[in-house]
Amino acid sequence: MTRFFETHREMLDKALAAARDRGYWSPYPEAPSGKIYGETAKDDGEAAFTARLGNSFALAGHPTNGELVGKEASPFGLPLEITYPAADIDQLIGASKTAGEAWILASVEERTGVCLEIIHRINKRSFEMANAVMHTTGQAFVMAFQAGGPHAQDRAVEAVAYAYAEMTRNPATATWTKPQGKHDPIVMDKEFRILPRGIAVTIGCATFPTWNGYPGIFASLATGNSVIVKPHPTAVLPLALSIEIGREVLREAGFDPNVLLLAADEAGTEITKDLVLHPEVAIVDFTGSNSFGQWVRENARQAQVYTEEAGVNSIVVASTDNFKGMCGNIAFSLSLYSGQMCTAPQNIYVPRDGIETDAGHKSFDEVAEGIKIAIDKLLGDPARAAGICGAIANPATLERVKQAGSLGEVIRASEAIEGLDGARTATPMLLKIDAAQSDAHLEERFGPIAFVVAADSAEDAIARAAQSARDKGAITAAVYATDEATLDKAADAFSRAGVSLSCNLTGNIFVNQSAAFSDYHVSGANPAGNACLTDAAFVANRFRVTAIRRHAAA
Amino acid sequence: MTRFFETHREMLDKALAAARDRGYWSPYPEAPSGKIYGETAKDDGEAAFTARLGNSFALAGHPTNGELVGKEASPFGLPLEITYPAADIDQLIGASKTAGEAWILASVEERTGVCLEIIHRINKRSFEMANAVMHTTGQAFVMAFQAGGPHAQDRAVEAVAYAYAEMTRNPATATWTKPQGKHDPIVMDKEFRILPRGIAVTIGCATFPTWNGYPGIFASLATGNSVIVKPHPTAVLPLALSIEIGREVLREAGFDPNVLLLAADEAGTEITKDLVLHPEVAIVDFTGSNSFGQWVRENARQAQVYTEEAGVNSIVVASTDNFKGMCGNIAFSLSLYSGQMCTAPQNIYVPRDGIETDAGHKSFDEVAEGIKIAIDKLLGDPARAAGICGAIANPATLERVKQAGSLGEVIRASEAIEGLDGARTATPMLLKIDAAQSDAHLEERFGPIAFVVAADSAEDAIARAAQSARDKGAITAAVYATDEATLDKAADAFSRAGVSLSCNLTGNIFVNQSAAFSDYHVSGANPAGNACLTDAAFVANRFRVTAIRRHAAA
Repeated sequence: MTRFFETHREMLDKALAAARDRGYWSPYPEAPSGKIYGETAKDDGEAAFTARLGNSFALAGHPTNGELVGKEASPFGLPLEITYPAADIDQLIGASKTAGEAWILASVEERTGVCLEIIHRINKRSFEMANAVMHTTGQAFVMAFQAGGPHAQDRAVEAVAYAYAEMTRNPATATWTKPQGKHDPIVMDKEFRILPRGIAVTIGCATFPTWNGYPGIFASLATGNSVIVKPHPTAVLPLALSIEIGREVLREAGFDPNVLLLAADEAGTEITKDLVLHPEVAIVDFTGSNSFGQWVRENARQAQVYTEEAGVNSIVVASTDNFKGMCGNIAFSLSLYSGQMCTAPQNIYVPRDGIETDAGHKSFDEVAEGIKIAIDKLLGDPARAAGICGAIANPATLERVKQAGSLGEVIRASEAIEGLDGARTATPMLLKIDAAQSDAHLEERFGPIAFVVAADSAEDAIARAAQSARDKGAITAAVYATDEATLDKAADAFSRAGVSLSCNLTGNIFVNQSAAFSDYHVSGANPAGNACLTDAAFVANRFRVTAIRRHAAA
Repeated sequence: MTRFFETHREMLDKALAAARDRGYWSPYPEAPSGKIYGETAKDDGEAAFTARLGNSFALAGHPTNGELVGKEASPFGLPLEITYPAADIDQLIGASKTAGEAWILASVEERTGVCLEIIHRINKRSFEMANAVMHTTGQAFVMAFQAGGPHAQDRAVEAVAYAYAEMTRNPATATWTKPQGKHDPIVMDKEFRILPRGIAVTIGCATFPTWNGYPGIFASLATGNSVIVKPHPTAVLPLALSIEIGREVLREAGFDPNVLLLAADEAGTEITKDLVLHPEVAIVDFTGSNSFGQWVRENARQAQVYTEEAGVNSIVVASTDNFKGMCGNIAFSLSLYSGQMCTAPQNIYVPRDGIETDAGHKSFDEVAEGIKIAIDKLLGDPARAAGICGAIANPATLERVKQAGSLGEVIRASEAIEGLDGARTATPMLLKIDAAQSDAHLEERFGPIAFVVAADSAEDAIARAAQSARDKGAITAAVYATDEATLDKAADAFSRAGVSLSCNLTGNIFVNQSAAFSDYHVSGANPAGNACLTDAAFVANRFRVTAIRRHAAA
């Protein structure tokens, strides 16, 4: 049945066009507005979330070993006490394989329609999702709504669009007519079939469970693989909700809902390693640390493995015609979700002798001070600070901030946010170091820790930042320069290091932000990940093509 | 300079259209005809080949450690005594990296043009190539011309076309305009750059050095990687010739010819392992045995690895309305190049109780006898036998044939071909076994060894053949059946096993043949290889995309 495909066909066509043009487009409004999502949507979403608290999350027909697991705790201090059905690996694999039999044979249109309907229904529940993302990741509400809701849904639609484009690039049938000189030609009828790889596993992360999880989940689903989702133990709910919705749509479309499964576990007794090593697992999508990413890449040898790991993102400050705008922009990038983004900058390289600006020459210290003041100003109002920084997902991040004071000269200390007393919070810590004297900035310091790094010159800054991207990985980079020569040098250096570069951002757009249908997220060309989440290569290998040929009827 | 691109643009457009439609198309005529290639082409090619004999193969500007290597010997008995410049791994990697710097930065059109010009010039030398392929692989002359010449060139053009399509799918620039409600929109100019992975290595095989080598070589070259070609020690000349031509074109186009390098070695002192393990090697294309393929996959962890390995191909005989045509077609498939094709069938499954045919019921033994007689008839004339079977590339294959007699009941013994006395030759050996009593047929027996295998029924035959493909890999399968139900069952079973299926072939087309621009060669979905040589996935991961974004000028 292709009812869902017909329903969403127009949207799919727009998505395909956007992915080709790479201009701005989004099917889902990012504003958490009652005018868009319904006047009662905010309250309904909160009520739905609240109703989950203290309860067991039921998934009808889902395999289970009878145990209930789940120890999520909100970084904002709210007790969640939600449990999820646990299942043994063999139960998950068995159910996934059984359910996959019909899913594999479904048409491209059927699968595409089901995926788009799932995303559509997830969108309608964006307020519920916002609460779930907020209270598992520590994102402030508006960010949790946007990044966990519409922006994540954009990424899901994008994955489905790439998959659809890839699967329909070649005809389902062809007639092959080979001339034979004076004789009759040989005429063969050919049929081409899409063959999914089998079972796919997505390993979720603690900070962006939906935004980072959806690309792999929907790319695999759309290409006919059944999917087992293994959320991070601290951020299960957003993916469990997504799975619940997905299973509902699968069932309505006549498929076994076990095409989409939840592999819930708890910290300390994770099942991830056993799951990804299972010989029936053919695809793994992973978001998380370099160390576990490396383990997955090296051990899940039977599977195609796509990773987004971590890196050290840099900003090079060479010169600017808008000093205030630059400092404000950088301050926001450092503060947003307290630096817990894979795209957040860590190192701000500035020439030791200072830079030229619209406000005259600024010494290295003055640049550092300008950024500090911009952070102070941005976060001066506690309510605003809470809305930007949110809370800290992992207690280890707070500990890291405490330890970081010894790594350089502290320009700005990290502080808790007033009024969020039950929450784990930390505003950005800013340190000064000299690249000639310290390597402290070359390690990833995940969270609200940033370094203003003295370099010999703009060229030296570019070279150091690009080398750091090659060595440790990086997803984003930014440069501020008023001359084309420096911008060109930065473009060449960061491109060759596999990093996306933003130039002279001063307005309401930030280096942390990756736009669906336009930006390539992760290049796959440095240690920050082995795959791009947003290109044809991300989907092209999730299925294969087989063919049947026969003589055409005379 | 894009002169070469303009020259070949029309051909490229046709190739792109053919790859989309998957109908018949070829840019290069397969007939070894003087009318097409020039009246003196045959003699010129032979003379050029002969001039190589006993000499050192010079490659101007190629890195070398001063040693000369090479111990190729024609399976037809002709002494070759050609030596090639050897180089240390570090010399090869260093030269490749240096040459790659400018190649990486070349435009898509520049690189595409250079690749198509190389292929064009290789085509002009198809007669010389035919001699080189014949006297390294043992293919008979016409086959060496076709498979080593135009058909291999087709595959090269195909790889370039896929690469071009993939690189140009996304725009080089985009404008991203995000509405901001009542405020001015945010407008960003974006630039997208192709970032090749780096250095690619192609490991050639002994039987189809060009046909199997070109896809990886040209897919990597076109996507901006510099390429090191490591031929099989027994089949260096065809690839050395190709490299010589490639370097000439690169030089003319203003590039360092070391973008394309030869890594020559000798049996017993192969440099393959050290080469593919080098940390700078980012892509490996391998054609060869499962055991070495597995080694490469498991050890060249720093690289994207594409393999075509081996498998056990099957034919299921369920019924036929053209018994004679079927037997003749199977006989040719078994005889062509003495079964030394990755696409050649090994096992012919026939129901134990026989089959219905246009010539009445045929018992199992009568089917086996029919195939035997067809082989005898096909190869009855020694000259014709020589033209079909050619010679045996590897002495170990002859040894394997000798040992195979004990594996079942020999219906037809393998014999040397009269009149090819200096050559290693062997016509097909045909054995009978019962699948209920023997597993001898389940191992790959590379070369002219085939089994007629008794199965319980057509269904049992399909199930056994498909299972064998899953377990041991398979690239091709064929089925003979007069009813749609059996054909459908075979289509489902072989598709799910990742094997391309040919139905009821009786004319001048054979299960061994894979047509450029139409057939998918290797599915990547069973142990016969991890990649398809002829789809978007084969090229999409050879490069990455990086981006530069900045505020649009107001």
